[in-house]
Amino acid sequence: IMDDFQDRYISFLKSLEENRLDGFIASQPTNLRYLFNLDAELGFAVTSEKETILLIDSRYVEIAQKETVNCKIKLAPVSTLQSLEELASKLFPTNRARIGFESDHLTHSLVSKLKSTISGKQMVPTANVIENLRQVKSANELEAIRKAFEVSSRAYHRIFEDFSWQGSELALAAKLEHKIRMEGAEGIAFKTIVASGSRSSHPHARPSKSLIQDSSLLLIDFGAIKNGYHSDTTRVLLRSQDKEEEKILKIVQEAQNRAISGIQAGQKASTIDSLARKYIEDHGYGQYFGHSLGHGLGLEIHELPNVSSTSETVLEVGMVFTVEPGIYLPGRYGVRWEDAVIVTDSGCEVLRIDAPR
Amino acid sequence: IMDDFQDRYISFLKSLEENRLDGFIASQPTNLRYLFNLDAELGFAVTSEKETILLIDSRYVEIAQKETVNCKIKLAPVSTLQSLEELASKLFPTNRARIGFESDHLTHSLVSKLKSTISGKQMVPTANVIENLRQVKSANELEAIRKAFEVSSRAYHRIFEDFSWQGSELALAAKLEHKIRMEGAEGIAFKTIVASGSRSSHPHARPSKSLIQDSSLLLIDFGAIKNGYHSDTTRVLLRSQDKEEEKILKIVQEAQNRAISGIQAGQKASTIDSLARKYIEDHGYGQYFGHSLGHGLGLEIHELPNVSSTSETVLEVGMVFTVEPGIYLPGRYGVRWEDAVIVTDSGCEVLRIDAPR
Repeated sequence: IMDDFQDRYISFLKSLEENRLDGFIASQPTNLRYLFNLDAELGFAVTSEKETILLIDSRYVEIAQKETVNCKIKLAPVSTLQSLEELASKLFPTNRARIGFESDHLTHSLVSKLKSTISGKQMVPTANVIENLRQVKSANELEAIRKAFEVSSRAYHRIFEDFSWQGSELALAAKLEHKIRMEGAEGIAFKTIVASGSRSSHPHARPSKSLIQDSSLLLIDFGAIKNGYHSDTTRVLLRSQDKEEEKILKIVQEAQNRAISGIQAGQKASTIDSLARKYIEDHGYGQYFGHSLGHGLGLEIHELPNVSSTSETVLEVGMVFTVEPGIYLPGRYGVRWEDAVIVTDSGCEVLRIDAPR
Repeated sequence: IMDDFQDRYISFLKSLEENRLDGFIASQPTNLRYLFNLDAELGFAVTSEKETILLIDSRYVEIAQKETVNCKIKLAPVSTLQSLEELASKLFPTNRARIGFESDHLTHSLVSKLKSTISGKQMVPTANVIENLRQVKSANELEAIRKAFEVSSRAYHRIFEDFSWQGSELALAAKLEHKIRMEGAEGIAFKTIVASGSRSSHPHARPSKSLIQDSSLLLIDFGAIKNGYHSDTTRVLLRSQDKEEEKILKIVQEAQNRAISGIQAGQKASTIDSLARKYIEDHGYGQYFGHSLGHGLGLEIHELPNVSSTSETVLEVGMVFTVEPGIYLPGRYGVRWEDAVIVTDSGCEVLRIDAPR
């Protein structure tokens, strides 16, 4: 794991060079965790050619001193602007130094203040400098992701030890989340979706007091966090022998199969999206598949690569993303089927949970 | 509740007038929920003198059409820049119209794109336009907040039905979170903190595999979400008769008392902070109380009012905030005691959970 951190930092410095940056201010919490092993909601890492100084407030300073790597710690008040200016003058004595910042994460107001505080330097907006590094996972990271899926698989299994198609969506969500915790997760990867009947037609339904016995279809979208890494899986259960529901489910599952079969390094992510989308369109449901095929996952539940019809990503070995086609019939019901994959030398490894249903 | 939404919208329009704005683009999800009853991760509400148009993507459009108030819905792709430009031209035909945006929430990159897309208008950075409205709660909101505290109170009670000072921090956190869900919460207000022994000296400790039987002190910081509103409470349990731990706990509790006794409308929030801080300083522990006294809570776990030594807020009836002094002895242990209060005509109402410990 320590090797991982060293490799990441070297890649980061290389990336700054490629972007002709003399320095960088990183602030997105997951990026700080990735490069410096910082587990905090707020911090600023200022990197020069020589070193990285991490500005952190008193709430996190003790734990940061103990746990972080690749950086020196400097205690700073929560309002860090003055500290940033002092650091910038010290680390980048040259006028016109080009200092990158995370344009997609820093707010407009903070950047305005930064620009007026840090004088004589060029503040350069950047996008995805660290996120691009994060999308290809190391062997250790892949192992952590597999563990997260194992935890959620065991938890999902345990739900069916005494499953009776009874009770509210909220109660089932609470039960599944509890099992996820008891199976060893640090937490749930996102708010569990349990949507019965017509509520499943909203891709982002929240569990309600609706009773699942009142419906014949149940959609469950859930995940675990293990060692910081996320899992993400969706299953749909059918109670009755509704022919149409079964047909839609089979179309969605086959669309997923087609996409997964096409995955290999060198392939475009947009092509994988189109493999599933085309199959659904050919069956006349194209207009009911409104979201992209999937998303990367890792230290965040949604990260790069972008797996959509407009993605410009070319797949690489070690990328991890979900494959989750869906068909949502407004006011009636929705079906989504989701597993994640790791791109491998020979195609992909499917992180399919081992489930009784 | 519908009256609430009407009142909020009227106050919002009045606030735009006071800020000499011809229009406003709201985007912060909780602000959209507050004004328009939108429950979505992403959306843009464009308000002119005449009306508000809410741009929303396909994932949320069905639920938005059903649930939102004070606005018209317009389906827009996730990348909403073109739709925003079209809307802006339509709603603000006058050149030089002043359109406010949320400078603390929109990213630098989005604002850069907005400014280049929306031509001929003045994009005006604003801070806290809607957040300022949110900090004074209506009777309905106060009732929801009380309910959130009742849920977490019952859940905390249930922990002690068979409490044995055994097991890991993680297991106790999972158990408490499960009880919170089973007592009727939509979810937990934040990741529960269970920190034993020296881990409690980190104000933001995360539960670990550490066994609580190995320590004599246990800090639990937890909350529930009910109807969108958050509760937040911290308790510290002492197992042994450690004189110093008891002394520190009493100082913190008395500091909280002093602060609460001073709360009344018209008083400065910074004065309330200083009542607790002075008491802790007078006992020689001032340097170990590194955070502010409290924070507002409501639809978010942290919101206005700011309750710190540098706050400029003057308390008003209907404001809700936590009072949570703490003393953290590095490497040894930490003690924090937290309850929330509602500012009332006659002082304040304490949302104290009814706990066996």
